[in-house]
Amino acid sequence: MLDACMALNVAFGSDNHSGVHPAILTALSDVNEGYTIAYGADQYTEQAVTAMKKVFGKDAEVFFMYNGTATNILGLKAVMNSFQSVLCAETAHLTVHECCGPEQFIGCKLVNIPTPDGKLTVDLVEPYVIGVGDQHMAQPRVISITQATERGTVYRPAEVSRLAEFAHGHDLLLHMDGARLCNAAAFLKRGLADISGKAGVDVLSFGGTKNGMLCGESVVFFNPKHAKEFPFIRKQGMQLASKMRYIAAQFSAFLSDDLWLRNAEHANAMARLLASELRKSGVQVTQKVEANMVFAIIPNECIRTLHKQYYFHRFNERTCEVRLMCSFTTQRDDVLRFVAAIRHCL
Amino acid sequence: MLDACMALNVAFGSDNHSGVHPAILTALSDVNEGYTIAYGADQYTEQAVTAMKKVFGKDAEVFFMYNGTATNILGLKAVMNSFQSVLCAETAHLTVHECCGPEQFIGCKLVNIPTPDGKLTVDLVEPYVIGVGDQHMAQPRVISITQATERGTVYRPAEVSRLAEFAHGHDLLLHMDGARLCNAAAFLKRGLADISGKAGVDVLSFGGTKNGMLCGESVVFFNPKHAKEFPFIRKQGMQLASKMRYIAAQFSAFLSDDLWLRNAEHANAMARLLASELRKSGVQVTQKVEANMVFAIIPNECIRTLHKQYYFHRFNERTCEVRLMCSFTTQRDDVLRFVAAIRHCL
Amino acid sequence: MLDACMALNVAFGSDNHSGVHPAILTALSDVNEGYTIAYGADQYTEQAVTAMKKVFGKDAEVFFMYNGTATNILGLKAVMNSFQSVLCAETAHLTVHECCGPEQFIGCKLVNIPTPDGKLTVDLVEPYVIGVGDQHMAQPRVISITQATERGTVYRPAEVSRLAEFAHGHDLLLHMDGARLCNAAAFLKRGLADISGKAGVDVLSFGGTKNGMLCGESVVFFNPKHAKEFPFIRKQGMQLASKMRYIAAQFSAFLSDDLWLRNAEHANAMARLLASELRKSGVQVTQKVEANMVFAIIPNECIRTLHKQYYFHRFNERTCEVRLMCSFTTQRDDVLRFVAAIRHCL
Amino acid sequence: MLDACMALNVAFGSDNHSGVHPAILTALSDVNEGYTIAYGADQYTEQAVTAMKKVFGKDAEVFFMYNGTATNILGLKAVMNSFQSVLCAETAHLTVHECCGPEQFIGCKLVNIPTPDGKLTVDLVEPYVIGVGDQHMAQPRVISITQATERGTVYRPAEVSRLAEFAHGHDLLLHMDGARLCNAAAFLKRGLADISGKAGVDVLSFGGTKNGMLCGESVVFFNPKHAKEFPFIRKQGMQLASKMRYIAAQFSAFLSDDLWLRNAEHANAMARLLASELRKSGVQVTQKVEANMVFAIIPNECIRTLHKQYYFHRFNERTCEVRLMCSFTTQRDDVLRFVAAIRHCL
Repeated sequence: MLDACMALNVAFGSDNHSGVHPAILTALSDVNEGYTIAYGADQYTEQAVTAMKKVFGKDAEVFFMYNGTATNILGLKAVMNSFQSVLCAETAHLTVHECCGPEQFIGCKLVNIPTPDGKLTVDLVEPYVIGVGDQHMAQPRVISITQATERGTVYRPAEVSRLAEFAHGHDLLLHMDGARLCNAAAFLKRGLADISGKAGVDVLSFGGTKNGMLCGESVVFFNPKHAKEFPFIRKQGMQLASKMRYIAAQFSAFLSDDLWLRNAEHANAMARLLASELRKSGVQVTQKVEANMVFAIIPNECIRTLHKQYYFHRFNERTCEVRLMCSFTTQRDDVLRFVAAIRHCL
Repeated sequence: MLDACMALNVAFGSDNHSGVHPAILTALSDVNEGYTIAYGADQYTEQAVTAMKKVFGKDAEVFFMYNGTATNILGLKAVMNSFQSVLCAETAHLTVHECCGPEQFIGCKLVNIPTPDGKLTVDLVEPYVIGVGDQHMAQPRVISITQATERGTVYRPAEVSRLAEFAHGHDLLLHMDGARLCNAAAFLKRGLADISGKAGVDVLSFGGTKNGMLCGESVVFFNPKHAKEFPFIRKQGMQLASKMRYIAAQFSAFLSDDLWLRNAEHANAMARLLASELRKSGVQVTQKVEANMVFAIIPNECIRTLHKQYYFHRFNERTCEVRLMCSFTTQRDDVLRFVAAIRHCL
Repeated sequence: MLDACMALNVAFGSDNHSGVHPAILTALSDVNEGYTIAYGADQYTEQAVTAMKKVFGKDAEVFFMYNGTATNILGLKAVMNSFQSVLCAETAHLTVHECCGPEQFIGCKLVNIPTPDGKLTVDLVEPYVIGVGDQHMAQPRVISITQATERGTVYRPAEVSRLAEFAHGHDLLLHMDGARLCNAAAFLKRGLADISGKAGVDVLSFGGTKNGMLCGESVVFFNPKHAKEFPFIRKQGMQLASKMRYIAAQFSAFLSDDLWLRNAEHANAMARLLASELRKSGVQVTQKVEANMVFAIIPNECIRTLHKQYYFHRFNERTCEVRLMCSFTTQRDDVLRFVAAIRHCL
Repeated sequence: MLDACMALNVAFGSDNHSGVHPAILTALSDVNEGYTIAYGADQYTEQAVTAMKKVFGKDAEVFFMYNGTATNILGLKAVMNSFQSVLCAETAHLTVHECCGPEQFIGCKLVNIPTPDGKLTVDLVEPYVIGVGDQHMAQPRVISITQATERGTVYRPAEVSRLAEFAHGHDLLLHMDGARLCNAAAFLKRGLADISGKAGVDVLSFGGTKNGMLCGESVVFFNPKHAKEFPFIRKQGMQLASKMRYIAAQFSAFLSDDLWLRNAEHANAMARLLASELRKSGVQVTQKVEANMVFAIIPNECIRTLHKQYYFHRFNERTCEVRLMCSFTTQRDDVLRFVAAIRHCL
């Protein structure tokens, strides 16, 4: 099965299928000289934290970690008790693709809310804020949104603000899974903080891996009091890197010279190209293409044919809606060849 | 405080203070071209697993992860139930320096056994195998040893075998924390499997980070049945790397051209040099120097003076016994200058 | 608020609002003489287990506990791993009213399936058996049904069997929350085993408290291999009673002279009377009345008026559908007076 | 094996081997009439809480539960985070006989401190308050003491106060496992609050089961802020009784007419008699007899002979020190016959 996979073109399977941006690899070499203290008490981590605070605000508390599973789970653990719940879209990575990690490590319940486009709204969330004060029921504590969403759509800052206001008015917090925050910011032509902390987000997972890093994710607490115990939560949570300078260096490079933005803009542009070419070929695109992913309906037989050459996901196991991802390395030619293959089998 | 730390020479504080071996950095660049499938289903991971199986045996099941906290905790979780206990030396990293991670993620009890030199023996362990079948008491399930130990000593293969026999005779498993397995193998002039799986170890954490990698640790199950559910445990455990090729590539390089061995031999040699120079200077070395660390008694006042220039750990917060670590990057001159500084303040 | 509550008639609020059957209280006195060994190794527990095996089969493994929250959570914990999921009706007590207990103590995900009447069917369940073998996703492990359901309906034995067959055919187990198993058996005029273990249920929570006991619930494993580690799970799960004889004695009395059946038949009959009187008064009864509860639509204003005298639950916080419960102590007059009050305010 | 056990005289095996005091059984009948609201919002629970507050102070927050395992674990969970530790005597029930429950449900580490007599002192505890602020290490959070201890000794109020002062001076809390608080109070001739909350205890488990109840334990928080989230912790923790009135009624009776005190005084007196008779017979009593238990050295062969008639515990599995328990039901004749049997086999 592995052999089968390895023979396939996996370009559109995931933005995780891309490599590492050369500037990131260079950054690793650049910090390699000499001894530095481990576990984040080094100058490179200090520099990276400073760069992050420049982006997210001087009161923001920043912690680097290995992967997005961890930034989501541990970031939430920092602000929750085991008898509380997270309200999220039923498509949220948190609830669909973390193999019960939040349940296991926090103890909490994830409340799945159906949405047409991966985006929560106050109207959608409100009916789920129930049982408050009833000792028999999970206590709502956090609304978690994904920016850009798992459906490739993007929250406008005002939409985030409305959710934040609603949350804070109900003694809830607003969490943002920003695994693709860069793609959202690039689409909105807004700063990373404008669409997260400044719009009212309390806890942010800000990811780099899908957008050109080798391995680097972060949690940003916009309210420092939520971060007080986080060093212990991160360590206990198996996410304290010993040679932290190498994660820090990636973030410093990522935030320099707008690398994060250039990568995200490219990925988004490729997704728009892909969508436009698909539409031209008569393929139905099912979601707005605002970030780096395209959802489209492809007939079952055609999917089977394509799967002999290309690796990509059905949106769910039973439908003909597929998910196609672009990344900072996607080439115009990749797109055109792929659409040609689709056209061929239609 | 950070500034203070950063001004210090941290060479002897930890083997984590070293950088990354150039061959490892090169390996990262070498796999950077093109798309590969994420989460370990790629050819680079396949190659690295093959290399690991060549070392540890073809039946060994191998999983790559980010750090040693995780390989220890999740490797144990795979073979334990929440009502069981791990018997370990009271100096074991697992019980002293994982911030209750095993308790939180497994639920288990760690039973701390005093030892003179960090090494468990059958005689030391036996009195702690109690309460078997008594529903009120934690059920002994695993004996965990560290190779090389946290005291710089090394288990001989026969010592490991005796513990394995005892364990298996009592329906227990033998776990080895091999964060410094390379240093032990280099000292013993034996293969990595000879001193772990072939000597009866059931579950091994085999680490690379302290010995020249950027970030790469692994769990090796010598009995494949223990590995059956591990993909889910690793994913839920927040340790499934998306861009796995970059961890895999490090392991492939690490196992090529005896890089692991050359690095470990150098670190061990530097520790021997350090010990010998200390002894010449009248400093008492308190443990056998078999791996890459030296324990020594330095008068309190002298520690305070040295701490203005050098960062290193007291073995415990209250005594004058200090822990000095060497690594693959430690230079002869580093050692000589440091001992000169000690001689100066004595 | 407490004063307000205490002034109300709470007869129809819950079957937990009833007292203890006199025969149960007598049973407590009857075992009070002399010393007995604690924690269940006594003759009274042996007798009660024997009585349970007579009902549920000689291979059934039986464990007594304090409450239903625990029998559900710990019974499931015995057969699950933390990365697995339970498929249940979205109305299941397990997912709605256990305050994230299953998530916290098992780590698992509860997958909520909408149903019209509280009953799962193969057709309803099948679309949720997804992601099997995909390391990113919670692995389906158990289908949990409630007998009688939280909507007052009852699974026929053939319906249970079909779910069991489906479950076992997909490597899943079938769990039954039998907090009101007696009411279901009374309705079906079948034995307790006929509608649980003999119909294919693997793990059963069999409850007594709602049907006349003071405090007594049990887990029944129909496959002894699932029970092997349960003594430790129960103890660790804070549910091993020291003076076990007093829970055992309740079960022995409960199973003697058909006490369980007489109590359940009475409760069911009162619910039928209530439903019939409500219908006569023009009130819409929204679910089949098969056990001891009635769901009905009462205008909002009328609910408010009634709530000044009577304590009962709205089915959910936002609708006019109310839940009315009967128990072994409900009197014909209680019912008639309550319906008169409703008629008065309509 | 069960048959064997049941043929034995178990009088001295545990205070849990006693039955229920008649006044407690009567109290159950007395509250049996009519409907009451479930889960503790009833008048009987209100009365019992009022009685408890009269004893422990009007600011005390009181919660009833089923057993002592739960009051200890959940009481601690309310004031701890998963990365923290509990410092306790190595003989503490919490660490020896709860089958890793605290580790599983809190996540915390239990730090076992050797003591000669089951009693912690500031001198004994202080060396274990280490690693504060070090993210790698379990953070000390609670000192837990048992009153009376598992060795039958009793803390004087001044001893408790010294530990409380030390704890509070180091940002720690003081927890008391009061499974046998009544026996301690009876010995000291002091009130229950004098030797717990008034002496500085923050969280108390106050037990009734061992001293004449059927099933009733409680957590008392002397600082109301620690109790804020406890209703949810208790419910999630599987310890919220539906028919709460029957636990409440036991506590009301227990606190009436000094029932708790009379029971405890009797048990203590029987232990003193037992110790004195043993000493007269030349048996070495190894601990001060201050509560209701006696530790004594009996030759191995004699233990084996006695075990054919009597069920009692060796203090640990390997020594000849045995633990003998008295309770409110122990009779003078029970003691004399038992000592005669010992004398016979010596």
